[in-house]
Amino acid sequence: MSENKIPYKIYLSEDEMPKAWYNMRADMKNKPAPLLNPGTGKPLTAEELSPIFCEELVKQELDDNTAFIEIPEEIRNFYKMYRPSPLVRAYCLEEKLQTPAKIYYKFEGNNTSGSHKLNSAIAQAYYAKKQGLKGVTTETGAGQWGTALSMACSYFDLDCKVYMVKVSYEQKPFRREVMRTYGATVTPSPSETTEVGKKILAAHPGTTGSLGCAISEAVEVATKNPGYRYVLGSVLNQVLLHQSVIGLETKAALDKYGIKPDIVIGCAGGGSNLGGLIAPFMGEKLRGEADYRIIAVEPASCPSFTRGKFAYDFCDTGMICPLAKMYTLGSDFIPSANHAGGLRFHGMSTTLSQLYHDGYMEARSVEQTSVFDEALKCKETGEEKTIVFGLTGTGYFDLVAYQKFHDGEMTDEIPTDEQIAEALAKLPQIG
Amino acid sequence: MSENKIPYKIYLSEDEMPKAWYNMRADMKNKPAPLLNPGTGKPLTAEELSPIFCEELVKQELDDNTAFIEIPEEIRNFYKMYRPSPLVRAYCLEEKLQTPAKIYYKFEGNNTSGSHKLNSAIAQAYYAKKQGLKGVTTETGAGQWGTALSMACSYFDLDCKVYMVKVSYEQKPFRREVMRTYGATVTPSPSETTEVGKKILAAHPGTTGSLGCAISEAVEVATKNPGYRYVLGSVLNQVLLHQSVIGLETKAALDKYGIKPDIVIGCAGGGSNLGGLIAPFMGEKLRGEADYRIIAVEPASCPSFTRGKFAYDFCDTGMICPLAKMYTLGSDFIPSANHAGGLRFHGMSTTLSQLYHDGYMEARSVEQTSVFDEALKCKETGEEKTIVFGLTGTGYFDLVAYQKFHDGEMTDEIPTDEQIAEALAKLPQIG
Repeated sequence: MSENKIPYKIYLSEDEMPKAWYNMRADMKNKPAPLLNPGTGKPLTAEELSPIFCEELVKQELDDNTAFIEIPEEIRNFYKMYRPSPLVRAYCLEEKLQTPAKIYYKFEGNNTSGSHKLNSAIAQAYYAKKQGLKGVTTETGAGQWGTALSMACSYFDLDCKVYMVKVSYEQKPFRREVMRTYGATVTPSPSETTEVGKKILAAHPGTTGSLGCAISEAVEVATKNPGYRYVLGSVLNQVLLHQSVIGLETKAALDKYGIKPDIVIGCAGGGSNLGGLIAPFMGEKLRGEADYRIIAVEPASCPSFTRGKFAYDFCDTGMICPLAKMYTLGSDFIPSANHAGGLRFHGMSTTLSQLYHDGYMEARSVEQTSVFDEALKCKETGEEKTIVFGLTGTGYFDLVAYQKFHDGEMTDEIPTDEQIAEALAKLPQIG
Repeated sequence: MSENKIPYKIYLSEDEMPKAWYNMRADMKNKPAPLLNPGTGKPLTAEELSPIFCEELVKQELDDNTAFIEIPEEIRNFYKMYRPSPLVRAYCLEEKLQTPAKIYYKFEGNNTSGSHKLNSAIAQAYYAKKQGLKGVTTETGAGQWGTALSMACSYFDLDCKVYMVKVSYEQKPFRREVMRTYGATVTPSPSETTEVGKKILAAHPGTTGSLGCAISEAVEVATKNPGYRYVLGSVLNQVLLHQSVIGLETKAALDKYGIKPDIVIGCAGGGSNLGGLIAPFMGEKLRGEADYRIIAVEPASCPSFTRGKFAYDFCDTGMICPLAKMYTLGSDFIPSANHAGGLRFHGMSTTLSQLYHDGYMEARSVEQTSVFDEALKCKETGEEKTIVFGLTGTGYFDLVAYQKFHDGEMTDEIPTDEQIAEALAKLPQIG
């Protein structure tokens, strides 16, 4: 089909939606390093993981070899409420930028929860329900994951306890209203409701929290309450697996029009959207079938890829979770209280960390104030290339940030080298 | 095509989008009554209207005979950024409700401004630009129209001055951030920036405003500033014309699958979404080609159709605007300060008023607390019919209302018969 026939929005039909998730790990020569038991320093077994995670999700977490895992029909039907999501050809942006580049973005904001997080939330809720659980616990940063999980739990009639990073809880009061509307309980973290929360508050009085703190609290509650498991919206292999639906749809839509992207760009907090978007492209790259430039963009205030260390570390601040080998700033690292409450995790997906370490992708860090400036300026000229990026959701709940920016009150507090070195000095001595 | 082949979301292709708007008035035997000059009591001419409205829009406003008016290519291209919008088969809702009814909704929230208002905003901005104007003024209630117009003006590089009903300005601070982001100026109404605003504040100290007040202010600013015109997001014939794109797409999507709806339901503030959604169905009904039940749903706190009078009235509180024959509660009527800031207009589209008066549609009023209750209960059983309703946008900016509802602080202040009689007693003595 000729270039000028490409519509503004490419929609697959519901029949063309993927029927299986794609597991990048199956095609990786160097598999991501296994999660370790913090007590023994040995790889965690399925038995050890099942008090924390649902059984089926443990299987997916540990499966480094199956390339395609079927999406259960119930999940596919739920997906049909908001998927396939559009792959948008950004004609208007190209014109405004006066760039010869062809820009596409995969937009994941067109669902009630407002972000891509729903893709994994519904899968995790489904497996929890299937296992006969009463409910799940989780953490949320910006609130996207908590919102998505609340919606998914409400659909399957599961209880949902959300620990929300305190800075987001305060900056985004409406997020908690959405979660309340779906019937979830929302607690600002760190809180006095858990042992680990009390400990963190004692060590860091007045802290505005981090995903690492909230994870510790949610895990404690899940393991202490019968019939509950913990679920996580990013970082984990299982999450990247579920999110591969983003990339699979993107690739199918591009293929339909014979388009081969040169560059694939995704934002990286813990890696859920990035890992999902790039999955099939990375697969081709890993199998030597095609080449793409793959670029991770992360916030300068929490630069795991670009300034962190590839090492085993705790996933949480309370150091009660498994150890993961990942690019990390140290589990003690608490980012400044800027608006990017969702991107305040000290680490990064083990799969993406391994791929970055092995040279399959690039990474860049960007300051949020300059992102705003660029958005307002939009005056650069681009390359004559085909670029695909992931737009993970709407900014409708982040308007405090716009207000601060307009009022000149937005700052970036980029960690100093000394701050990062100090946090990294506390890494566990493993591997 | 068999019933069970109907997808969750029916998307037309961009080629199938309407190339002309449909003007219901062309098929009405009883045309809507003309706008009158408040000074002379005579129908307003194009010459009299052009200091207020753009020339092309005046033509559209007064044209009762042309059934189809071409959508300019620039507008169609802009539409392609977010249209066609999905017609969603609400399978999950049907299941939750355990109803044999087949429920479809046309969802207009999938654009950056978050509502259907963009359909008319881009058209009005286009005609203003084409006329070589510097900018436009307007009012906004809930903020949907102001957001849409700000976005449209930014696209065409037009200045945009928005008067925002004070209760919404205060309850929805994020709305003004979106408008500011698009470069618009937002002033809470009534304000001290206009003569009419000062007068209203003197007469109603402490008033939280209404669309009628904000219209008066915006019109005053437009007529006093060279190179400016006033634009309006609802009520007017031109707006219903532009919004017909909603109904035309809905009908085309239904026709594609051979579906004939029994009932078409839309919410009614000033009539823009309702009038757009029902347009082609009403057209068939007017021409005697098909029959549909068409139901307008309006807020109990501002019940123009169900408790108002069909009479000539001012469109604004300041009584400086043309007189329109419509179902009205009286231009002096200021609804209680509930959350429905966008639905606080005392009147109703003249076209829809005439159609309601002539028995072509039904109307019901609903209390907002009971709407919430029903949404939470969702336990009724429906009829075995095909129902289509319009979902005009997202509730992402209305979360204060959710918060109030959860906290038990939401009230409905339904006007008493005495209050309505008092406001109606002040109707101008015309027609």
